Amino acid sequence: MRIALGVEYDGTDFFGWQRLSHASTVQGALEKALAKVAAQPVEVTAAGRTDAGVHGRCQVVHFDTDVVRDMRGWILGACSNLPHSVAVTWAQPVADDFHARFSARARQYRYRILPRLVRPALDARFVAWERRALDAEAMHVAAQALIGEHDFSAFRAISCQATHARRNVHSISVFREDNQVVVEIQANAFLHHMVRNIVGSLLPIGRGEQPVAWMAELLEGRNREVAGATAPAEGLTFLGPRYEAHWGLPMEVTL
Amino acid sequence: MRIALGVEYDGTDFFGWQRLSHASTVQGALEKALAKVAAQPVEVTAAGRTDAGVHGRCQVVHFDTDVVRDMRGWILGACSNLPHSVAVTWAQPVADDFHARFSARARQYRYRILPRLVRPALDARFVAWERRALDAEAMHVAAQALIGEHDFSAFRAISCQATHARRNVHSISVFREDNQVVVEIQANAFLHHMVRNIVGSLLPIGRGEQPVAWMAELLEGRNREVAGATAPAEGLTFLGPRYEAHWGLPMEVTL
Repeated sequence: MRIALGVEYDGTDFFGWQRLSHASTVQGALEKALAKVAAQPVEVTAAGRTDAGVHGRCQVVHFDTDVVRDMRGWILGACSNLPHSVAVTWAQPVADDFHARFSARARQYRYRILPRLVRPALDARFVAWERRALDAEAMHVAAQALIGEHDFSAFRAISCQATHARRNVHSISVFREDNQVVVEIQANAFLHHMVRNIVGSLLPIGRGEQPVAWMAELLEGRNREVAGATAPAEGLTFLGPRYEAHWGLPMEVTL
Repeated sequence: MRIALGVEYDGTDFFGWQRLSHASTVQGALEKALAKVAAQPVEVTAAGRTDAGVHGRCQVVHFDTDVVRDMRGWILGACSNLPHSVAVTWAQPVADDFHARFSARARQYRYRILPRLVRPALDARFVAWERRALDAEAMHVAAQALIGEHDFSAFRAISCQATHARRNVHSISVFREDNQVVVEIQANAFLHHMVRNIVGSLLPIGRGEQPVAWMAELLEGRNREVAGATAPAEGLTFLGPRYEAHWGLPMEVTL
């Protein structure tokens, strides 16, 4: 039987999503908790891996098991064996050909920035700090150049293992929320560090150090070395993947 | 010279606001940091004390000093000597008769609740968990009974040291925000545990265990023993005090 789960986590104290033998990761914690519920080893496959310090609002994973538990049993059993910074928010049986990663048609991320003189305290785990004022409107206009299918080599980490750099950005918006600047982006899929590198290049535009047209130039140039620095991990939250409605999951997409 | 400061903090890892000889508190951390900047002891007076685990969005304090520093020096000096969970967000010279506590004409609090089957993970530090669904509309209607000047003995902690229980609630609203239920309340001042006891009595109404009229009955009865249990600290944030405009502070009030 194949089961899909929604997973929420505060990534601050983890070395990222992916299981590591020598460090605490979200996948590692989740598999350990599920193994206790199943009383046998469980391996999960996630919609997207997140880096150290990056958070998850609704990561989706699937796993296969012969163990019979009702969905409430998986949810509550996992939660009671997980650290406080991770929770399973839903569980659902899925067809055998559902795949958390390959069936996902889109992924959504949110990046939060606090532009002010002093570092954040109350939201320190969840926002990136920018010392100078930001022109969110200029950032928004600049970001629109990314929409559509492009080669995103300019925003791709050197360590990225994807076979090619073409990705399709469905939407990106930059807006103010209280005293913060928020970047929300949806694409079919993302390269390693792609959101943080895009935000890192929007920041000089927000500060007025680069013109609005810079974003389009960077995209066109496909040169990682001239784009902005990678923005810090703590500002980033993986909101989750989106699937076609026929899978019956709580996170549908209409494209 | 008298100086006022805005202070932001994540209260999770502190034993509340007020200085204690044997435990880590926000006031203690702030006075230690300011003493380093002043190179002499500093004592601060706050607009309101918060309990262990309660957060501060814009606490206001004042202190007196003969040491000459520009305001940027106080802000940045304090921040570099404070733990990551506390920040001074602004500093301003004030008249000698300004008093952070006695000059405050109102205080605002926000209480956040996550009603769902499983405990919060991503926001675990900042929201209270409620296992059952809540009727926010019923809670809002019930809460309106508290508006105006009343004896709030029904919502006063036994440990409360105030000379009387009369307080004036200016406004209270309960509304949904994403998947959370938020309670926002402004009063001239608050009794010890007053917000958490009010929320603790709104919860049975939200769950449908008590009628909307229960809130007015509790208020009228002035009996702490029949009102709801004190809601947990982590959901509560002190948004800050409000002062008359003539003090020239960033947090004005119009009553």
